Amino acid sequence: MTHFISRITTLFTDYMRETSSREDAKVVNYIAPKDLLAAFDMRITDEPESLGKIVEYCETTLQHGVRTSHPRFYNQLFARIDPVAMVGEWLTTMVNTSMYTYEVAPVFILMEAYMLERMREFIGWDVNVPGDGLFSPGGSISNMYAMQAARHYHFPQTKEHGLLAIGKIPVVFTSSHSHYSIKKGAALMGLGMRHVIAVDVDRRGKMIPADLDAKIQLAKDDGLAPFFVNATAGTTVVGAFDPFEEIAAVCKKHGVWMHVDAAWGGSALVSSKQRELLRGVELADSVTWNPHKMMGIPLQCSAILIRTSGLLSGCNATNAQYLFQKDKINTEYDTGDKAIQCGRKVDVFKLWLAWKAKGDKGYERQIDYAFANSRRLAELIRARPGFELVYEPECTNVCFWYVPPSLRHLDHTERREALHRVAPVIKAGMQYRGSMMIGYQPLDDFPNFFRMVFSNPAVTEEDIQFILDEIENLGHAL
Amino acid sequence: MTHFISRITTLFTDYMRETSSREDAKVVNYIAPKDLLAAFDMRITDEPESLGKIVEYCETTLQHGVRTSHPRFYNQLFARIDPVAMVGEWLTTMVNTSMYTYEVAPVFILMEAYMLERMREFIGWDVNVPGDGLFSPGGSISNMYAMQAARHYHFPQTKEHGLLAIGKIPVVFTSSHSHYSIKKGAALMGLGMRHVIAVDVDRRGKMIPADLDAKIQLAKDDGLAPFFVNATAGTTVVGAFDPFEEIAAVCKKHGVWMHVDAAWGGSALVSSKQRELLRGVELADSVTWNPHKMMGIPLQCSAILIRTSGLLSGCNATNAQYLFQKDKINTEYDTGDKAIQCGRKVDVFKLWLAWKAKGDKGYERQIDYAFANSRRLAELIRARPGFELVYEPECTNVCFWYVPPSLRHLDHTERREALHRVAPVIKAGMQYRGSMMIGYQPLDDFPNFFRMVFSNPAVTEEDIQFILDEIENLGHAL
Ligand SMILES: Cc1ncc(COP(=O)(O)O)c(C=O)c1O
Ligand SMILES: Cc1ncc(COP(=O)(O)O)c(C=O)c1O
Repeated sequence: MTHFISRITTLFTDYMRETSSREDAKVVNYIAPKDLLAAFDMRITDEPESLGKIVEYCETTLQHGVRTSHPRFYNQLFARIDPVAMVGEWLTTMVNTSMYTYEVAPVFILMEAYMLERMREFIGWDVNVPGDGLFSPGGSISNMYAMQAARHYHFPQTKEHGLLAIGKIPVVFTSSHSHYSIKKGAALMGLGMRHVIAVDVDRRGKMIPADLDAKIQLAKDDGLAPFFVNATAGTTVVGAFDPFEEIAAVCKKHGVWMHVDAAWGGSALVSSKQRELLRGVELADSVTWNPHKMMGIPLQCSAILIRTSGLLSGCNATNAQYLFQKDKINTEYDTGDKAIQCGRKVDVFKLWLAWKAKGDKGYERQIDYAFANSRRLAELIRARPGFELVYEPECTNVCFWYVPPSLRHLDHTERREALHRVAPVIKAGMQYRGSMMIGYQPLDDFPNFFRMVFSNPAVTEEDIQFILDEIENLGHAL
Repeated sequence: MTHFISRITTLFTDYMRETSSREDAKVVNYIAPKDLLAAFDMRITDEPESLGKIVEYCETTLQHGVRTSHPRFYNQLFARIDPVAMVGEWLTTMVNTSMYTYEVAPVFILMEAYMLERMREFIGWDVNVPGDGLFSPGGSISNMYAMQAARHYHFPQTKEHGLLAIGKIPVVFTSSHSHYSIKKGAALMGLGMRHVIAVDVDRRGKMIPADLDAKIQLAKDDGLAPFFVNATAGTTVVGAFDPFEEIAAVCKKHGVWMHVDAAWGGSALVSSKQRELLRGVELADSVTWNPHKMMGIPLQCSAILIRTSGLLSGCNATNAQYLFQKDKINTEYDTGDKAIQCGRKVDVFKLWLAWKAKGDKGYERQIDYAFANSRRLAELIRARPGFELVYEPECTNVCFWYVPPSLRHLDHTERREALHRVAPVIKAGMQYRGSMMIGYQPLDDFPNFFRMVFSNPAVTEEDIQFILDEIENLGHAL
């Protein structure tokens, strides 16, 4: 076993070193599914395999995987993980406990309470008012907690009696650019996806408060029961920040819960320069914030934060006697009854440890650097023929087209159609080469465009140049 | 950084060595919340902290935590983690990717498909019929997926139009001893907790099929819409296995979805001796199985398995264009649209790696050993004055009372009340001493009793003796 651990340590150290380097490792060694199945014998049989073989399987797994910590991985809203956070998560795995009771997780239960309070402070809520919150298995589930808390606030009878007891149809509002988890939540919670009403966005991808106001009024006139507005801090594709102050005013006027999905953009709160983007977030009733995105914490790390206390246990408590015995010591610290989960992995420690190591100032610098990089890329795009910004960046997303020379003189409609086919080809080219990874998608009437995301602190000026060079290289002959 | 990693490695190695030993470490160094807060400065400030300090924080965290891998931790349905699985999870953390697309998780996507197929095979489903499934953040959420799939099967209009479009009240049936996640699911999904109808159990804690039949019929007569029955393989407290064949017949008769919550008892499927306990499980439409319990996989590792294909994406697909572009390569492997999550942590690798290392036979031995230990403890309890079994064990749970001498001659009612106060005192005593951890709870009319759980493969005959000695030692003077 000691020999095994030492071989694994070497393997991991090598992997981390290579992954940090542009020369020693590709972002991905692309392999098609059927070739991967042929190259990697996954079958488990009756007989045990030696620890030596286990090390080899780990090697093969690393070899065929995508290196998300590589300086040229920009494909998702997460990228390079923080090494201290990684060690924190390793510790968490080793101690393997669950977040429901103080009894089995004394340190982590107190730490979660502390971190949630701290995050509430960054939001700007009054820390003297007890709030509520949990770490959940991701932003989607955090958003669902918010919807659930809001539903419980407005229609507490739902918990016992179900939605049918409301007597009206509850409806939800969210911008057309918001994350799909609101729709998934509406499906799961029995509200129905058509009762998620899409609010229009402006040319920068921000929710239009007047449209929200009008649509809430319309819903009321139709006898529906508006109860929840989801605003977004950092939309998934564009990185837009909705105008929270105006939205809050509309919510207040109509008596509707205001949630801010800051899964992506919440991390801007730790920067005194960027937090202005979230002006008005403190007016929200609840906020989702994912440290597993811009803060470099390994998946999963997401917090649902609620301004006032009591709603999570209000909607989720079942008082299971086998777990939450009131005759046991310290049960007032238990969190299990607030959650939709029973066993709940410890997601707070890695974040706490990384934040301790950086301090607020260190995190601020890291976030500011990601923002600066995005502005730099936008500048380069503006200056370079063939590249066009789709949106002016607000968060660290940079959305742009590359227009190959052959398309530059086409008329509008022809160009649109041809351009739609460009990004997929370039993307596949990147994957085959393994040189970098960037996502693309269409949006509204815009044909496929690249969404470059900066959250990787290893990115340099040279990398930023490389992004455009490589895209041009792969696409100029199309 | 290298120095840091090497100090961490030493710290972790020491922790694992101590934790394996009955002499070198207590299960817990009990500390009250306010003392812990005083002993452990959690505050994060502006300034970074050195890596040396980070190592110290890790030490403090380990010191005050509960050692769930200690041979005398029996408090939850999980215990000692498998060291190969731990390494697998460390690798997962290091590569940090998400399970939505083949693009970013090629190995893990194929591995998940393989493992789900394998688990379906253990259930006894026809492997030539394509099935469905996912790893989810725990058994509670797996059970909710099952409820959601069943609802979609019976009332597909819910997804778009909401529960109100059904026109009837959908109801769910589960035994009175089943896990509370069914109720939580009903609350979240808008069904309402009162529409979870409790089916009676017999003296061994098993659902009574005749009562199920009668209650479904009654619900139908009342104009309600029964659509889901949850049967349990290994109930949380008692460890009972519901009679699946009879339940399947009732479900078939009434046209209702049958789910088996085998979160706890599912692992018995890998043993040719124990799998008889799950006879008829192959008649289920869906099964929850948590390798993070009896199989020693670190939290979280839970699978929802569905006999037929298509329902998960049926109820969850939103076709988000930014993530699941049909013009991208290999998208037919993507799983994201099936999930209620967006980012989804890789939970399959640790299970796969541990299973490879043990082989089916190794896992079978481990499971059989846990069962054998439970029978041994029951035998000792039967033979020892002052100890009484509450239930004959079926799974590896052993439920028993310790009756201190002073209570042995009380009349029934007096004894009941006094006995109820015994377990909490003994439990607190264990925690203060740190000698072992076992849970207790009341159930139905039974006053507080201990629930000993065997899933820890490090338990020896000596430990089993110690359990009774220690309880007697802590409780005989009460
Ligand atoms: C704005 C926004 N909200 C929520 C989510 C969901 O977060 P998670 O992937 O953790 O479920 C995302 C994910 O990209 C997002 O961009
Ligand atoms: C029978 C049963 N089902 C479901 C669960 C929930 O599993 P999890 O804790 O992974 O949510 C448990 C947990 O103890 C259980 O005992």
